[in-house]
Amino acid sequence: MLTTAAPLEHSRRTSAGRTAVICGDERFDYATLHDRCSRLAAALAALGLQRGDRVAVLAAGCHRYVEAHLAVPAAGFVIVPLNTRHAEPELLDALRRSGARVLLADREPGRLGEAVETTIRFGADYEALLAAAAAPAEPSSPFAATGVTAGVTAGAAFSGATSEDDPAAIFFTGGTTGRSKGVVLTHRNLVANAFHKTLACGLERDDVLLAVAPLFHVAGTAPLLGLVWLGGAIVVLPSFDPAVSLDLIERHGVTVLVPVPTMVAAMVDEQGRRPRDARSLRLIGHAASPIPAEIVRRAHAAFPGAELAHFYGATETSSVVTVLRHEERELDGPRLASCGQPVPGVEVAVVGPDDQRVAPGEVGEVLVRGPSVMAGYWEDPEATATALHQGWYRTGDLGYLDDQSYLFLVDRAKDMIVSGGENVYSVEVENALYEHPAVLEAAVFGLPDERWGEAVHAVVVVREGTSPTPELAEELRDHCRSLIAGYKVPKAIGLRTEPLPKSGPGKILKRQLRDEHAAARAVRAVPTA
Amino acid sequence: MLTTAAPLEHSRRTSAGRTAVICGDERFDYATLHDRCSRLAAALAALGLQRGDRVAVLAAGCHRYVEAHLAVPAAGFVIVPLNTRHAEPELLDALRRSGARVLLADREPGRLGEAVETTIRFGADYEALLAAAAAPAEPSSPFAATGVTAGVTAGAAFSGATSEDDPAAIFFTGGTTGRSKGVVLTHRNLVANAFHKTLACGLERDDVLLAVAPLFHVAGTAPLLGLVWLGGAIVVLPSFDPAVSLDLIERHGVTVLVPVPTMVAAMVDEQGRRPRDARSLRLIGHAASPIPAEIVRRAHAAFPGAELAHFYGATETSSVVTVLRHEERELDGPRLASCGQPVPGVEVAVVGPDDQRVAPGEVGEVLVRGPSVMAGYWEDPEATATALHQGWYRTGDLGYLDDQSYLFLVDRAKDMIVSGGENVYSVEVENALYEHPAVLEAAVFGLPDERWGEAVHAVVVVREGTSPTPELAEELRDHCRSLIAGYKVPKAIGLRTEPLPKSGPGKILKRQLRDEHAAARAVRAVPTA
Repeated sequence: MLTTAAPLEHSRRTSAGRTAVICGDERFDYATLHDRCSRLAAALAALGLQRGDRVAVLAAGCHRYVEAHLAVPAAGFVIVPLNTRHAEPELLDALRRSGARVLLADREPGRLGEAVETTIRFGADYEALLAAAAAPAEPSSPFAATGVTAGVTAGAAFSGATSEDDPAAIFFTGGTTGRSKGVVLTHRNLVANAFHKTLACGLERDDVLLAVAPLFHVAGTAPLLGLVWLGGAIVVLPSFDPAVSLDLIERHGVTVLVPVPTMVAAMVDEQGRRPRDARSLRLIGHAASPIPAEIVRRAHAAFPGAELAHFYGATETSSVVTVLRHEERELDGPRLASCGQPVPGVEVAVVGPDDQRVAPGEVGEVLVRGPSVMAGYWEDPEATATALHQGWYRTGDLGYLDDQSYLFLVDRAKDMIVSGGENVYSVEVENALYEHPAVLEAAVFGLPDERWGEAVHAVVVVREGTSPTPELAEELRDHCRSLIAGYKVPKAIGLRTEPLPKSGPGKILKRQLRDEHAAARAVRAVPTA
Repeated sequence: MLTTAAPLEHSRRTSAGRTAVICGDERFDYATLHDRCSRLAAALAALGLQRGDRVAVLAAGCHRYVEAHLAVPAAGFVIVPLNTRHAEPELLDALRRSGARVLLADREPGRLGEAVETTIRFGADYEALLAAAAAPAEPSSPFAATGVTAGVTAGAAFSGATSEDDPAAIFFTGGTTGRSKGVVLTHRNLVANAFHKTLACGLERDDVLLAVAPLFHVAGTAPLLGLVWLGGAIVVLPSFDPAVSLDLIERHGVTVLVPVPTMVAAMVDEQGRRPRDARSLRLIGHAASPIPAEIVRRAHAAFPGAELAHFYGATETSSVVTVLRHEERELDGPRLASCGQPVPGVEVAVVGPDDQRVAPGEVGEVLVRGPSVMAGYWEDPEATATALHQGWYRTGDLGYLDDQSYLFLVDRAKDMIVSGGENVYSVEVENALYEHPAVLEAAVFGLPDERWGEAVHAVVVVREGTSPTPELAEELRDHCRSLIAGYKVPKAIGLRTEPLPKSGPGKILKRQLRDEHAAARAVRAVPTA
């Protein structure tokens, strides 16, 4: 039986003097990290929190957020990381639905504060709380009952009454579609994923991770547990910024980071503008959305010493499902478009509408099974029953497996465009657009169309120094026509210079683009009515 | 939920065409391995075996033994690997106590055949059985009930009714002391250990393992599951031979092996006599007993490109507990004598007689906890209750942890010599002996002594070309005196040229040496009586 307390206890014993977390000018070793985490646990227990109670966090990336991720579940409570880009009503909804009793926040909580019993502000408040907490001593007998048990401020070591099937975290995520759901990940889920991720990244004790993905997203927190277990170092930054990230890589000898594709593109651009010494990088994993081939090419050119790896996963799978290692070696091969093979411990099946497995090469829905698959959605048996069946999680993604189980995603089930009776996978069109030198970002989606049912529509952010002219739009359509079938070529391309709207983890919000487009059309429609 | 079926299914899907097993001139890819394993499962089910039934194996190393290790538990049965060095009465005891219904054997079973319903001889019989078995098809729905369920010859894929808490294997082991006990390892134990071992060895997809340790011992089988999961290659040999091993390393580009210290010493000697190209070796792990510092030194000189790693574990822990990576870098440091730190997933505590943790540096009994710790001893609740307490396994080993949880073993609890009121840890005396160039093997133990309580006694195998003279014995005692305290110096040293008696896994049988000595003394005592 292992809970998320295990890595924290392990690193205290095996790596006490090694650097654990670097945040700005602060640097904590594993002895200090453990001490701070156990003080946080004791302080929460002193507030009257019981095993299983929820603790929400609303904050930018910082060492205190890392502490909360480690200490809250280790003490038997449940962490609810809130998406800082959500609007107040969405945050209130998550707080209320989770029934969180405590909110940890780095900002004025406003109305959110009224939804919880206690708000603890990161900074002076938090530090005072830790200082006042009883410094917990380790029980001298390994057989002694330890941990924060119901109603008792034991505060000692973390491993206690918590079971591996207890919830450890609830991530409220609607992704890019529908109403937000609370993904419940148990200790067992997170521990399994820690092993999967560590193996998939080949993480080692001497690795230095730059936590670029937001800490309210599972992809941002997924590498943490494994790294703590190994005694590696974690560099935290408030939020992603390509220049700051490269500075930190140079300054701390960062070896690993797992950004999302849009972050990779931004870092490549920044490295081109002002090169840093990034030779310490050995692995740039990327996750959360498909990566255009051209971005891989540019990343390999910008960071030639680093392995590039493509991870595929979901919040519901605690993150990693498949990995394509060394994709820089696949630059001219057919597998560059793949997100790799299932990692040891995780199974993938692709099924047709009848739930039968389809043949290699045939597109179907991607199903995932393994110990890292969520327990279910928080207090939502209906959504849970729809998503989980006999341990299999229905991702809603469409894809196919080749004969060696390399997974090729073609699209989100709901994003696939049906135009003139033909299926158009938007990622293919986006890939074509990205191959044009003027394209910085591209999003392709379907718009209702009387003639075609859905019309393929593209929004493109042009590179600095390029003018978003109608001529360029026409040139891009010609460019696409030279690469993909005519029915896949966007019927219209909207050019812009401002970045595309993105969700917390950096996924492009196509729904928002689609809504913006519909709104604009409605406005235009008024005068002629 | 993961059973040992998972890696077998995983590699079939992800590594079908890659080399799985090399045995003599035979070479099977993962598609073939899976096919053969599922045929074996179907054949056993056709014999009427039910979920949980035991299948014993008595054989030298071969690809069929690997198949049995993978297929028997994956199909929901329990494998009972028998120690080929045990005498018939011991084997009969293990067979009867396990209640095995089937025996797989590469030899005439004799009376053993009478103890089971069916004996299947490796070779033609086995191949005929596989050929006749229904080639199982994969169920097309991932939701279909699969696997060999009680009484039903489903034969299809392996993942079925088996639960992760079901026994997967029973290893009958008495180690070097006492009556043999059946260590029950569950699917969960073996899966957890596969992750621990893979992480601890840094195993990768391109690794080629030489399975030098016997396949009836947990240390011999421990790396297999992880390697199958990754799609790596396994080279099997009938039994350890230093020359054959080096030939295989050269021929197949072996990258990893995990022998026992006596095997390392033998390979170093052989490489000195007739050097092979062993540059493919990246990791020589060693396990099962303490390694003399001098052997590490010689191994590093003989295989300078390979990392040396010391593993500590027990059958009861599914093998790996701690690892000292890169011990060749510790040659002049204090940690060379350590067996390293607990691997992620495994906890170690050192306790005194009162079951309280002792301070760093203080000697106590080594306790181990984690998901790889056995379920218990087969049908032996008393022994189980003695060995397991609140998930902790009492190893019976004595040792201490330093301030970074590096574990230093001082001796088996039962092997420690108390001479003149002083504790003598035999490993320290053996280390001193090994530093003398004439010493090939050394074993130190206590003999009953009227004056000292116990007298420190040594048996030494001298190196080829050295004469086992009384002068040499005296020289060795002087040599020891220059290195360790007087009370630790052997009162007598028996010199010999024939190898020391060893258990299956290559552990020196001190009990047998002690018994031989007692017998010889009894014989000598007769004439004077």
